[in-house]
Amino acid sequence: MALKYPGPKRPINHPIPKKEPPKKLINKSNMGQTLEDDVSITNDFYLETKRAVVYKKPTPIQIVHVNYPARNKAKITEAYYKVPSTTDFNGIYKGFYIDFDCKETQSKTSIPLSNIHPHQIEHLRRITAAGGIGFLIVYFAYYNEHYYLPFEVLNKYYLASLEGERKSIPYQVFKDEAYRIPFSYNPRLDYLSVIDNHILPTFNIKGHK
Amino acid sequence: MALKYPGPKRPINHPIPKKEPPKKLINKSNMGQTLEDDVSITNDFYLETKRAVVYKKPTPIQIVHVNYPARNKAKITEAYYKVPSTTDFNGIYKGFYIDFDCKETQSKTSIPLSNIHPHQIEHLRRITAAGGIGFLIVYFAYYNEHYYLPFEVLNKYYLASLEGERKSIPYQVFKDEAYRIPFSYNPRLDYLSVIDNHILPTFNIKGHK
Repeated sequence: MALKYPGPKRPINHPIPKKEPPKKLINKSNMGQTLEDDVSITNDFYLETKRAVVYKKPTPIQIVHVNYPARNKAKITEAYYKVPSTTDFNGIYKGFYIDFDCKETQSKTSIPLSNIHPHQIEHLRRITAAGGIGFLIVYFAYYNEHYYLPFEVLNKYYLASLEGERKSIPYQVFKDEAYRIPFSYNPRLDYLSVIDNHILPTFNIKGHK
Repeated sequence: MALKYPGPKRPINHPIPKKEPPKKLINKSNMGQTLEDDVSITNDFYLETKRAVVYKKPTPIQIVHVNYPARNKAKITEAYYKVPSTTDFNGIYKGFYIDFDCKETQSKTSIPLSNIHPHQIEHLRRITAAGGIGFLIVYFAYYNEHYYLPFEVLNKYYLASLEGERKSIPYQVFKDEAYRIPFSYNPRLDYLSVIDNHILPTFNIKGHK
């Protein structure tokens, strides 16, 4: 009998996440951490090869208390993680503004829409309305497959869920309406190749003359 | 006799900065704080009126220690401010990627180039090379004047300083080669009007077809 939620099948050379929280407290909010490492390694490669300039935004922190053990050294002694109001990644590729977030699921059947904050969807809606390229990078750990999910497809399923339809996007939708991102050594996760092959050929930038 | 460095002449309704460090520890790194408030208020207005989507990136924090007083609550108990590797603001306007930082000076004669980190100049260089619009918003507190300084002008003076020329950009250069940003109620600091009137008419985007 097949297990419903087996553990992720990671590539052997996958870096081990170094950050907090410790393993026993792992929850949904840091499931995407090694995926984010892969994307950051990819972005470093794009930057070095002058292909694109894409950065991860710093994690927003609510600072409550700061000490000054020395005049020029501030030590933060009480702070909390804040919910980001936008996506984690943005940048510029071939003059186009690109904006995306990374999501990971252990499920082999679908990714729950609860993984994606409504304000992130709203942000991507604004970006695409302004002429930017908005998308998600979704990692199905069970299959060890990465997908480029255009905002338009995400939005279709999000809007349907608000009308009472299913609260997740089926794996089959990724097969049919998203684009597989090649995983290799360098660039690690070549999502720009998807933009080159599938997005730009039919992209109408609204704002440009 | 005129004073050489009188205090800043701020608009009466200027919000008081709320964040750390406390007043007695004010240093160059938070001189731009109320300027950043003005820019953030402007960006909120642009967002609400669907004119542009521009955000300030969160301040990067190096987290050293986190406690978990409850399973779902992470409390950061030791952390430090990191030097940002990019600029503070980026976003999209009319389909164009825009990227900038804010700088403030009390001087009435020039802004020292030491106010601008070399990695910020390098970042803006990459952005403009990729087809983005890069600039600084510079506030001369003595005159209560804001200027849009195109990256190209900043770069000219930066490169000259590396060759032994002066280590600052004279106020007169702002009069001659930068653009005054109108300050009003809403939008507070209408830097997009400068882009409309002075940048886009001659802008050649390199990457776009």
